Amino acid sequence: MPRSKDSARANLQNLYRIFTVPEAPDSTLGRIDQAITDNVTGFLQKHIVALENSLTDIEKSFDDPRIPEEPTFVSDYTEFIKENLVAQSVHTAAPGFIGHMTSALPYFMLPLSRIMIALNQNLVKVETSKAFTPMERQVLAMLHRLIYSETDEFYRRWIHDSRYALGAFCSGGTIANITALWAARNQLCAPAGNFRGITNEGFYSAMQHLGCRGLAILVSRRGHYSLGKAADLLGIGRKNLFLVETDDQNRIKMSSLRNQCQRLQDEGIRPLSLIGIAGTTETGSVDPLEEMADLAQEIGCYFHVDAAWGGPTLFSEKYRGLLRGIERADSVTIDAHKQLYVPMGAGMVLFKDPATLSAIEHHAAYIIRHGSKDLGSHTLEGSRPGKAMLVHAGLSIIGRKGYELLIDQGIERARRFAEMIKEHPDYELVTSPELNILTYRYNPAPVQEALRRADIEMTREINELLDKVIKRIQKRQREAGKSFVSRTRLAPARYHDETITVFRAVLANPLTTEDILVSVLEEQCEWARHPEISPLLDRLQEMTAAA
Amino acid sequence: MPRSKDSARANLQNLYRIFTVPEAPDSTLGRIDQAITDNVTGFLQKHIVALENSLTDIEKSFDDPRIPEEPTFVSDYTEFIKENLVAQSVHTAAPGFIGHMTSALPYFMLPLSRIMIALNQNLVKVETSKAFTPMERQVLAMLHRLIYSETDEFYRRWIHDSRYALGAFCSGGTIANITALWAARNQLCAPAGNFRGITNEGFYSAMQHLGCRGLAILVSRRGHYSLGKAADLLGIGRKNLFLVETDDQNRIKMSSLRNQCQRLQDEGIRPLSLIGIAGTTETGSVDPLEEMADLAQEIGCYFHVDAAWGGPTLFSEKYRGLLRGIERADSVTIDAHKQLYVPMGAGMVLFKDPATLSAIEHHAAYIIRHGSKDLGSHTLEGSRPGKAMLVHAGLSIIGRKGYELLIDQGIERARRFAEMIKEHPDYELVTSPELNILTYRYNPAPVQEALRRADIEMTREINELLDKVIKRIQKRQREAGKSFVSRTRLAPARYHDETITVFRAVLANPLTTEDILVSVLEEQCEWARHPEISPLLDRLQEMTAAA
Repeated sequence: MPRSKDSARANLQNLYRIFTVPEAPDSTLGRIDQAITDNVTGFLQKHIVALENSLTDIEKSFDDPRIPEEPTFVSDYTEFIKENLVAQSVHTAAPGFIGHMTSALPYFMLPLSRIMIALNQNLVKVETSKAFTPMERQVLAMLHRLIYSETDEFYRRWIHDSRYALGAFCSGGTIANITALWAARNQLCAPAGNFRGITNEGFYSAMQHLGCRGLAILVSRRGHYSLGKAADLLGIGRKNLFLVETDDQNRIKMSSLRNQCQRLQDEGIRPLSLIGIAGTTETGSVDPLEEMADLAQEIGCYFHVDAAWGGPTLFSEKYRGLLRGIERADSVTIDAHKQLYVPMGAGMVLFKDPATLSAIEHHAAYIIRHGSKDLGSHTLEGSRPGKAMLVHAGLSIIGRKGYELLIDQGIERARRFAEMIKEHPDYELVTSPELNILTYRYNPAPVQEALRRADIEMTREINELLDKVIKRIQKRQREAGKSFVSRTRLAPARYHDETITVFRAVLANPLTTEDILVSVLEEQCEWARHPEISPLLDRLQEMTAAA
Repeated sequence: MPRSKDSARANLQNLYRIFTVPEAPDSTLGRIDQAITDNVTGFLQKHIVALENSLTDIEKSFDDPRIPEEPTFVSDYTEFIKENLVAQSVHTAAPGFIGHMTSALPYFMLPLSRIMIALNQNLVKVETSKAFTPMERQVLAMLHRLIYSETDEFYRRWIHDSRYALGAFCSGGTIANITALWAARNQLCAPAGNFRGITNEGFYSAMQHLGCRGLAILVSRRGHYSLGKAADLLGIGRKNLFLVETDDQNRIKMSSLRNQCQRLQDEGIRPLSLIGIAGTTETGSVDPLEEMADLAQEIGCYFHVDAAWGGPTLFSEKYRGLLRGIERADSVTIDAHKQLYVPMGAGMVLFKDPATLSAIEHHAAYIIRHGSKDLGSHTLEGSRPGKAMLVHAGLSIIGRKGYELLIDQGIERARRFAEMIKEHPDYELVTSPELNILTYRYNPAPVQEALRRADIEMTREINELLDKVIKRIQKRQREAGKSFVSRTRLAPARYHDETITVFRAVLANPLTTEDILVSVLEEQCEWARHPEISPLLDRLQEMTAAA
């Protein structure tokens, strides 16, 4: 299709307009932008439809695989987005949505994000980031100090020494955990004699060099699924990720961990790393970090702590003791998009020893040259946005004491919610909140009573029915869109270690009031009376009456 | 330090304000936000200081490792950011900055980014992303179709089938390349008989199962440094990443590639993947993809194409033929934050066969359960922001024809710049632009003349001096802040394959006019007369006069 010269020129001019002419304030996009600026909560409440459409319906708006040939007006596109994307999004910031690890964002994050995006810096190299590079290094030092409390002299020495890095900033906890284990693996299989290191020679040669058949990662069965990915990716293998038993508080059983380590060594498998969890994703539990550090030291093995969730507990003078021992970890993962209240896409891993990350150092001819200040030489990712700015903003504007308040309030809110659940006859608290996460289930008083007397077989039958009830309540509640709790599966000792389905609540949104928590429980009781669910409860009643 | 109850309550109220009260329009942050909205180019021009401060000076603003105890007013913090961060940033969007792969952003990206950030969805699971999930799947299908042009029936079948994925959206090209090679590795070492796959059993067992001593990745020596990271991370080892010779156009030499493959097989190393490059980072060259696909097919090996830079050339009817053969790749990497003009932090990898990504599939009890629509089951990363929305916006608003214009203009602008360089007596074009990247160097006419007659020894001496000249000009130009070209090292055949330092120009910013290109060259000539640089040129003159 030959185009006339004139129309080509017109197209070109339109194209330049896209790059040079801002959206008018009274354009559709300008108005939405302003509405979000003025009142993001109101905007979201007004535009996100409460009642959930089925995913199949939503998919219909997104089922054309063809890239549109012709340009579209921004206003038309914005209308489309408003109706089909914004309206059908999840109200992650709503205070009644206590099932996610995302919460309301501080208002200042929005305009600051715009500055970050407008600047469009690339943190891989200092030539495209300049002041963002020292700022990111400062953020890493601040978090490092929060965990390891080294001396002023230590930070003066290392904070801006480009040959080393106190940590790596990344898109999230998964990359952070992988980075830690990558560094650990390469450190264990470092160059020695003729062996040029696993970096150069690969996994197979490294095992021949070490004289073992494999490496192992040990974590409790509450470990995050990213560790399975890490084991796969790094060539360790998922079967060598050992998920160790937990005690009644969902903390790793030290005796089992110790036995497992012994067994591995007998089998010629080298423990690469113990991983402690400071705030498990499902129950918010904290492993006995001190004891794990002792064991790691004893067997000469790396010790990583996944504090993606619980790390910010260190802000609290009252509760930081819950993480005792974390300062002995070789590395610690913290997610900024969780309890630092930064928008999605910001994680960090901090290393006790500034030399550890050298095990994964890399360079190229045109960037991250030796001796440059480029941060890209110590990160798994390449090009990266300046998200560290938002962490810097949070730490500066909210301050240590502000975060302390947020943490304290969250933990206390979770304890209050736990009490409410315990006091309610038709709910069962499954795991108490050690931090600000708890699990529970709907379980009518008579059924609870029957469970106390039931044998294993009967217990299993009751729990299977209850599982169905929980799943259906959770789904109905989510679809109704007023509030949200998530669900998971746990194997509490009280039910002979068999898995049951539970509700999971995360109390991190500072706007979640006690009234809202009351209404969440009330709503679940209401759903239990729904015709799709009540017959299950009737059957339970019959079963337990007969028993 | 015991706090009074009253002051604790006051603190709490201040904290809630952060989450509930927007920045006032006349606040410092509000005014900056508005200024960016009204005229981002003007804002950046006004606030980014032209003259570069030394990094050591900048570091002084970011050298306190202590997290502030007390909260700071948003306005005070904003002043700090304006003076110390914004002012000291890199003007990546300026049309005279032709050394980066980041360019000006379309205006609509800013307000749309705010919508994305305000919604704060998490793409790992549908419960926190809802409409964003099908939208991301659509974006992947659109890019898949751009590359592979499958039938409507194909896309109807796969686009929303949650058990499969046409690709993975990620934070950038590095993760995209790693994801591709991870899938390739796991597919090659898939479960068979008693062997439960490399995923479960790890690299060592996998080699025993395959009966080989290692795996190899083959790419030209222009390959991106992320491939070295991938080789390290995946347990393959950097020594098994073979950097194959290139021809005069910086394309992989097929005869060398073929010989290398043969040699590997003789040594018991299994070729895992050939990697073709569609737009090398340094020279923008495109490998002979068709021939590479033939060879991969012949030796039964995976074929990945790194089109992080050049992929969008497929939008152009005129130039898409340059990438012929890309449709035969098993997977293709494309960066959206490069030539799709999306803000930093968006990459993709597309897979020809929707079943390939199943090789890295994973699940967890509480999310990305089997059968769910959660995108997290097929990505390396975990929690992820809704960046796909901005790609969707670009494809919709700019359209195929709009991107075509951008691509065509870029290539033609690069050709024009190449002509300008060739016509100028004191510049030497080192690599011609195949796409929109070229390299050149300052090289005074008499020196060029002398080089034509020089022997190897003399050539080396001249080039060593020229290298210094180039480095200093590049540094001076960068520090002056008016314009920017990057530099790299190449080994052209004309200089006996010895490496020289060159300027690198990337012509992707639609606002870069011919006048700007003229002034970039003029400025470099001026810097050549700087007292730090001219003595080097005097020495060159003496040397060449003597010869």
